[in-house]
Amino acid sequence: MASITASYPWTTAPLIAGAPMRLISGPSLVHAISAAGGIGFLAAGTDVSTLSENLSAFKSLLSTSPIPGAPSDVLPIGVGFILWGADLKLAVKALSELPEPPAAVWLFAPSSSEELGSWANGIRSATKNKSKIWVQASCVADAIEAIKVANPDVFVIQGADAGGHGRYASAGLISLVPELIDAVREYYGNLNGGGDTSSFPSPPKFVAAGGIADERGVNAILALGADGAALGTRFLAAEEAVIRKGYQDAVLKAEDGGNNTIRTDVYDKLRGTIGWPEGYGGRGVINLSYVDAIKGVSFEENEKLYKVAEGAGDKGWEEGNARMTTYAGTAVGLVKKVAKAGDIVRELRGQRI
Amino acid sequence: MASITASYPWTTAPLIAGAPMRLISGPSLVHAISAAGGIGFLAAGTDVSTLSENLSAFKSLLSTSPIPGAPSDVLPIGVGFILWGADLKLAVKALSELPEPPAAVWLFAPSSSEELGSWANGIRSATKNKSKIWVQASCVADAIEAIKVANPDVFVIQGADAGGHGRYASAGLISLVPELIDAVREYYGNLNGGGDTSSFPSPPKFVAAGGIADERGVNAILALGADGAALGTRFLAAEEAVIRKGYQDAVLKAEDGGNNTIRTDVYDKLRGTIGWPEGYGGRGVINLSYVDAIKGVSFEENEKLYKVAEGAGDKGWEEGNARMTTYAGTAVGLVKKVAKAGDIVRELRGQRI
Repeated sequence: MASITASYPWTTAPLIAGAPMRLISGPSLVHAISAAGGIGFLAAGTDVSTLSENLSAFKSLLSTSPIPGAPSDVLPIGVGFILWGADLKLAVKALSELPEPPAAVWLFAPSSSEELGSWANGIRSATKNKSKIWVQASCVADAIEAIKVANPDVFVIQGADAGGHGRYASAGLISLVPELIDAVREYYGNLNGGGDTSSFPSPPKFVAAGGIADERGVNAILALGADGAALGTRFLAAEEAVIRKGYQDAVLKAEDGGNNTIRTDVYDKLRGTIGWPEGYGGRGVINLSYVDAIKGVSFEENEKLYKVAEGAGDKGWEEGNARMTTYAGTAVGLVKKVAKAGDIVRELRGQRI
Repeated sequence: MASITASYPWTTAPLIAGAPMRLISGPSLVHAISAAGGIGFLAAGTDVSTLSENLSAFKSLLSTSPIPGAPSDVLPIGVGFILWGADLKLAVKALSELPEPPAAVWLFAPSSSEELGSWANGIRSATKNKSKIWVQASCVADAIEAIKVANPDVFVIQGADAGGHGRYASAGLISLVPELIDAVREYYGNLNGGGDTSSFPSPPKFVAAGGIADERGVNAILALGADGAALGTRFLAAEEAVIRKGYQDAVLKAEDGGNNTIRTDVYDKLRGTIGWPEGYGGRGVINLSYVDAIKGVSFEENEKLYKVAEGAGDKGWEEGNARMTTYAGTAVGLVKKVAKAGDIVRELRGQRI
C-alpha cells in the first residue's frame, strides 16, 4: 500500500497538513507550509467568492518561489470548504477554470449526507479527478456514512480537542483514531468480500486533527495508526497567518488548554454566525463573553459589551477586557512562540531548526 | 533518571496500571494484572471499611500464586482512594496494620488541596514512606497545586476520554500529556534554581489514563512523553472483574465511543451518589435514563423507571430497556471481547497472545 506522501510528491513523511482556517489560512501561509514539505489548505470556508483571487495569489507566490517536487498537473496545496455555507456551483466554477486544480479538497460540515455526496461528485468532475477528496469525520457513524456517499481518498479524523468548529459529540484522538480506522477498514474489508483489506484498490488514508501541537503529538497519532497530522491552532502562531495581533497574542498567552477552552455556540451568536448544522460548536479560549453568558447576562447586554470590545481593536483580546473570540484547540497551551510556518512544519517532523 | 518500572520491580515496561474502579477492581483482578507484570490498583473508593478484607484476600492469592520479582517489603499492587468520600483515619489504620503496605496509593478527587495534602502525609506516615503516592490530575492547575501539597511520586494524567468520574473541564491526552509534563518539569526546574531538572532528586513520573484500550494507545501516550498507561474501561472486560454480566455485555456492545458516551451527573443522581466535588461528572454509555433526562422527563419519573430496570437484573442493561449505568470511557468501542486480565496486559505491551 503506497504511503500518503506518494499522492503529494512534494511532501515529506510524516505528512503535516495545515488546516483550512477560515479567514486565516491564506496564500502565504499555505505556500509556506507546502514549501516545507507539508500540505497547506487554503480556506474557502463558507464564502467561495474570494477563492479565485486567493488561488491567483498563491500561483504568483509559486511562480516566484517554486516548490520542488510539485507535480505539473495540480497545485501543491489543498482547498477547504465548509459545506453548509459554501456555494457548490461557485466552487465548481472556480475550480473548473483552473488549468491545475488543487491537489486536495477538504470537505467539512455538510448539512446532510446528500450534500456531502454532491460536493464530492461535483469537485471530482470539476477537477477531472485530479483533486483528492478529503472528508472530515469526528465519529465512526459519520465516517461510514461518508464512505457511502463520497468514497473519500482521505479521512480527516477530527478529535474533540480541535479548535474552532467541530462536533460536541466526539472523542479525543487517543480513542477516536484507532476506532475509526478499524471500523473503516472493516467496512472496506466487507465490501471486498470479507477478504484482506490490503487488496482493496484504494482504501482511504487517515489524517488526524485536534490537539496536536508539536512533534510528540505527531508521533502519537502515527502510533495510533494515522498516516499524517493536520494542525490549526499551531499555525495561528505562524508569521504568515492572516490574524490580528490581539488574537495571536491571546493564543500565545493561553495555558492549560482543557481547563481554559470550551466548545460552545456563545461566540457564534455574538459574532452573528448562523447556520452551523445542529451538533456543532466552536472551541475557543474562555473569555469574558463566555463567562457572562454562563452567568446569565442577557444576550443583548453581552452583545453590547462585545461590540465595544470589537471597536477596541487588539485591546479587545487583552486581559480584563477579553471579549473577542480566540478560537483555539486544547493544544493552545503548547503554543508559545510565533515562528515561520516552514519551521513549524519541520519541527513537527522532528527536525532541529 | 531511573525508569518507572524500577520502582515496581515485578513490572515490565511499558508500565500498565489497572485503574482502581470502585466495586469492580477486586483482589482477583489486581492480582492478575500485577502477575502479568503490570500494577493492579485495588479500589477502596469511598468506602474504606472493606479494604482490610480485600487486602487479606489479595494476600491469600499471592501466597497461592506468588508474583516473581515482587519485593518483600511491599505488596505488588496499589490501592486507590476517592478522597472526598473516604475516611482518612480508617485508611491510615488499615494500612498501618499491614506488615507490607501496597507499593502505591492512588489519590483521586479531594474536596480541597488541604485534604489532598493530609492524605499524602497520612499515607506516607502510615506506610513509613513505602507506598509511592500517585495523584490524579486532569489539568495543569491541579497538577501544580498537587506538587505544593503532596509532592506526588507519580501523576496520573486523566484525559477527558476517561470513563467514570473525572473533570468536565479537561483535555484529551493528546494535548494534556505534553502540556502537563512540560509544566510540571518547568515548575521543578524553577524550584531547582532554574537549573537542569534532571538533577532534581526525584521528579515525578507520569502515567496517562483516559481513552487507551490497546497497544496503539499505549504507544501513543509513550510518544507523548508519559512513562506508563492506566486503563479502566479495557479491564471492565477482564474475566476477573467484579462486574454484572449485563454491564459487561453493554461494554462489549457499545461502539463509536465519542458519540455514544457522555460525561454527566444524571447517572449519579439516579444511583443516589452524592458528594462529588463541583466540576466532576461520570462518563458512561448514553442510555434511556440519560435520553429521558435530557428530554425533560421529571427526575421522579426517571428514577421510578430506573428502579424498575434495577429490579430486572441484567436485563436492565439490554437494548430497549437500558437504564442501568454503564460507566465507560470513549475507548469502549475498542473493547470487543472478554479476556483474562493477564492477557490484556500482555497485549497492551505488544506481546502476541
